[in-house]
Amino acid sequence: MLRSKTCGELRLSDANTTVTLAGWVQTIRDKGGVLWIDLRDRYGITQLLLEDGQTAPELFTTARSLGREFVVQATGTVIERKSKNPNIPTGDIELKVTELTVLNPAKLPPFLIDDDTDGGDDLRMKYRYLDLRRNPVRRNLELRHRMAQQTRVYMDGQGFIEVETPVLIKSTPEGARDFVVPSRMNPGEFYALPQSPQTFKQLLMVSGFDRYYQIVKCFRDEDLRADRQPEFTQIDCEMSFVEQEDVLNMFEGLVRHLFKSVKGIDLAEVPRMTYADAMKFYGSDKPDTRFEMKFVELKGTFDTVDLTSGKGFGVFDSAELVVGINVPGCAHYTRKQIDELTDWVKRPQIGAKGLIYVRYNEDRTLKSSVDKFYSEEDLQKWAVQFGAKPGDLMLIVSGDSAKARKQLNELRLEMGTRLGLRDPNVFSTLWVLDFPLLEYGEEEARWFAMHHPFTSPKPEDIALLDKEEMLGMVRANAYDLVINGTEVGGGSIRIFNRDLQARMFSLLGFSDEEAKAQFGFLMDAFEYGAPPHGGLAFGFDRLCSLFGGSDSIRDFIAFPKNNSGRDVMIDSPSAIANKQLDELKIATTVPTK
Amino acid sequence: MLRSKTCGELRLSDANTTVTLAGWVQTIRDKGGVLWIDLRDRYGITQLLLEDGQTAPELFTTARSLGREFVVQATGTVIERKSKNPNIPTGDIELKVTELTVLNPAKLPPFLIDDDTDGGDDLRMKYRYLDLRRNPVRRNLELRHRMAQQTRVYMDGQGFIEVETPVLIKSTPEGARDFVVPSRMNPGEFYALPQSPQTFKQLLMVSGFDRYYQIVKCFRDEDLRADRQPEFTQIDCEMSFVEQEDVLNMFEGLVRHLFKSVKGIDLAEVPRMTYADAMKFYGSDKPDTRFEMKFVELKGTFDTVDLTSGKGFGVFDSAELVVGINVPGCAHYTRKQIDELTDWVKRPQIGAKGLIYVRYNEDRTLKSSVDKFYSEEDLQKWAVQFGAKPGDLMLIVSGDSAKARKQLNELRLEMGTRLGLRDPNVFSTLWVLDFPLLEYGEEEARWFAMHHPFTSPKPEDIALLDKEEMLGMVRANAYDLVINGTEVGGGSIRIFNRDLQARMFSLLGFSDEEAKAQFGFLMDAFEYGAPPHGGLAFGFDRLCSLFGGSDSIRDFIAFPKNNSGRDVMIDSPSAIANKQLDELKIATTVPTK
Repeated sequence: MLRSKTCGELRLSDANTTVTLAGWVQTIRDKGGVLWIDLRDRYGITQLLLEDGQTAPELFTTARSLGREFVVQATGTVIERKSKNPNIPTGDIELKVTELTVLNPAKLPPFLIDDDTDGGDDLRMKYRYLDLRRNPVRRNLELRHRMAQQTRVYMDGQGFIEVETPVLIKSTPEGARDFVVPSRMNPGEFYALPQSPQTFKQLLMVSGFDRYYQIVKCFRDEDLRADRQPEFTQIDCEMSFVEQEDVLNMFEGLVRHLFKSVKGIDLAEVPRMTYADAMKFYGSDKPDTRFEMKFVELKGTFDTVDLTSGKGFGVFDSAELVVGINVPGCAHYTRKQIDELTDWVKRPQIGAKGLIYVRYNEDRTLKSSVDKFYSEEDLQKWAVQFGAKPGDLMLIVSGDSAKARKQLNELRLEMGTRLGLRDPNVFSTLWVLDFPLLEYGEEEARWFAMHHPFTSPKPEDIALLDKEEMLGMVRANAYDLVINGTEVGGGSIRIFNRDLQARMFSLLGFSDEEAKAQFGFLMDAFEYGAPPHGGLAFGFDRLCSLFGGSDSIRDFIAFPKNNSGRDVMIDSPSAIANKQLDELKIATTVPTK
Repeated sequence: MLRSKTCGELRLSDANTTVTLAGWVQTIRDKGGVLWIDLRDRYGITQLLLEDGQTAPELFTTARSLGREFVVQATGTVIERKSKNPNIPTGDIELKVTELTVLNPAKLPPFLIDDDTDGGDDLRMKYRYLDLRRNPVRRNLELRHRMAQQTRVYMDGQGFIEVETPVLIKSTPEGARDFVVPSRMNPGEFYALPQSPQTFKQLLMVSGFDRYYQIVKCFRDEDLRADRQPEFTQIDCEMSFVEQEDVLNMFEGLVRHLFKSVKGIDLAEVPRMTYADAMKFYGSDKPDTRFEMKFVELKGTFDTVDLTSGKGFGVFDSAELVVGINVPGCAHYTRKQIDELTDWVKRPQIGAKGLIYVRYNEDRTLKSSVDKFYSEEDLQKWAVQFGAKPGDLMLIVSGDSAKARKQLNELRLEMGTRLGLRDPNVFSTLWVLDFPLLEYGEEEARWFAMHHPFTSPKPEDIALLDKEEMLGMVRANAYDLVINGTEVGGGSIRIFNRDLQARMFSLLGFSDEEAKAQFGFLMDAFEYGAPPHGGLAFGFDRLCSLFGGSDSIRDFIAFPKNNSGRDVMIDSPSAIANKQLDELKIATTVPTK
């Protein structure tokens, strides 16, 4: 070993021992007669001391040749510091250097290796190996390591077996776009990279492995948004001989274990909400429940209430839905502030036509932007419906039901943010249950599986599958775990009956031949003794970022790709040699530049 | 839960309790008045009992409708068996059934779900989900799970951080053939799947992560042999501020931990041997040291000995090397047995021109196939050189040094097998050290990295890099861990200096531009403060198969591919839709059938 101790472990009790450290030069302070070097490794920082008359002159020469990020080995005696630094664990001591060796010099890094750096995103991505030296980034990956460790502790303890499923699998057209891999040994044919190990984990259940898990890379060739990566990691799990309740309890246990072991938080029981209620009260299947501000209908679609029609306000009269939120304590909002909010909801990303407000003043008077149409008495009824108190501000949108809910969801989240109700260090969990089995794709004019084609309908709703007009009403035994408005996991009880599975494929527009060609092996497997089973997958990158209090999964991935799917550090993807293309029996159809 | 207990856990102490089991029907024995069902899950087998007069008649009807591999749920009372079965842990009890439900019927499986099955390889691969139900296959995957668990226990305990490196990386022409992935977002460009996370783990060292590991999928598009898979799993590790000795000790510790925790074996210290000695004494860089039979030179290349020349035997006179093994206690081999061995070494796979034998008879006389040329006195000298004792058989080959060693290596292994010296439950470990840095490819007329281009030469040999004629003599700080004649792991101390790395690339025939285009990011990283570092990777599939006492890694992979790289169960690879090809801007150049 080129070191006997790390830069984070020396204490006063080590005084007068001789040790060797190795690490990176963080800073040098040269006072002429005395010179200090802060030496850094992943465990901490230790101060090195060179002193005139005490330290050999050639060590001063070496020390004065050092620059930031030089890799250095130093041997010396641990001594008590004269002026201690209470901010770091090694602050009581310093190392009186007797040997100093440059293991590797360093060019000046292109940005500061410091908690607050001057490097922009692009520069830090190009030199990711330097960015990873910074404490905040390093801590994220350490957190991720602990999350993986503790996930395994829990799953192993519950008798789950970790099984590796293949990465080179088969392309299927359902769901997102696959990455494909040309096969040289089978010219003209392709493997696909898995979007999830779904069918394999179900086959493991058919095999009798009854409790499976895996922390596994998955792949989706989608146009990337800020929080998406083409390769991502799942905690993937499946269990046999279970009902929905068993799966919920098992994985609530995992989440509770992670909060306790990684963050020291005792998580309360995870509340449950149906998909229908989530849509009704939050306009979202992943509501942020750190704060209330539930939706209130004035002219309902879920309720039959109507407190707005027939007063001459055409906008509301023609609207399918009039819905709002009560923002507590914001009656003091100025006209300017409300105008700004109105502009905010009218942005194309939100798409609202406008925003109606009602101020419930402290003096119990009511002031709205629709005073022309609605009397104080009308508004009073609204206030009752909203459960508003003097001092509150009601914000109301209207229109097509689905659109209005979506817009109000965005506004609700925005108000939560503005009012500081979305503290990343507060955690609010929620099970969302009873998702619809199918959703209709207007564009494609066909039904899609909301979760995936292997999800079981609720037994009591199976009869509805016979009626085309009722398909949208069929509920699935599907569930999502939501934390702070983010879906961190989802799963379902699976179909394990060949006929029902075949019927699902048929509903999704597969011909018998297509279903057989793509999923024949699974349907065959269902005929050889498939147990009832179900499972769940967590988005591991997202879960880590949530635990780390960050919005960005990229900060929790060692070598992420940018929004064009590029790794700018290694400059990938890239052109490959014609010899490779020839061997693979493929050609690019991109015109050569 | 559809069960309250598993089929492996009930004991006499559970008698008179009511439990629910779920599992697969293994066998049914119907004696008319009494009917037994063996119910199986991954934990064991429990006997179910139906008895005339005690059990409701409709349960008999249900039971008689069952077939092998039906999935069944049974509730009943645990009772003591009249005739106990001492061969299974649940053999003291049976379940007196009060409820019996078919959860899923099953077609007759295409082969027996039994320890000894009647299914051939192809059939079992097609129905891999059924093969996985068999105890021996299931136990292999359970072993693999324990190996992974214990690897993590050790690595975590040593302060290693598990970091996930990317799967979509960049293609490089050095080494084996890459699998590539066309990028839709970057038309005409490709990702590659990693053959190992080599450059990323080195970058993590530059980042200061100082102890990294990962159990990770890697990919090689090679023509498959029986024991190769296109995707395979490595235990991948890297450490900073270390010398070779530190790496050897750390990973000897891992292997010792695995033997102890998984197999209950206290492993002795791992012996060490130089590459040169391995070649000299075993003709292989991965000698099987479960048995001796070291090579003995009669006309040497490593030694200057010559006990054969000038006696008129042209074959030996013209040979570069005359080398043999002493097979203890085999002087009794008949002429027929020796002829058969001679035919064996003359097969094209081995390629020897012939085989010379010397019998050292119990009466101390010597009898050889070259008595015409060599006197009893000559042979006596050979016997001394071989360290032979009366009753031994010396087997000798000759010719070109490299070829003769290779042939004798094969013969030695064959004799070890024939003499029962290669018990898969005996484990002999070995570090092979001081590999050559470079090897010359005659065909390509250039030097290749024996390990990989990032391996450091031994500091004392660096000067030899200047002399073209000495390049083959340069030794590397590279090491392999060999168990029972199989390389299970290998690694090296890495280059961490930009200039030396650039020189290596140049020696390997890279132009400066090529080196920069492919590995510029790594060479850049070396300029920003790279610590001395080194590491190792274990072949995890192979390690598991060794621990499981099997020659086949395929038995230790849940869903392996066949020798054509196909998954015959899911029928992959396969053709993909033209729409997919168009989106990816690629075309296949295979003539359509």
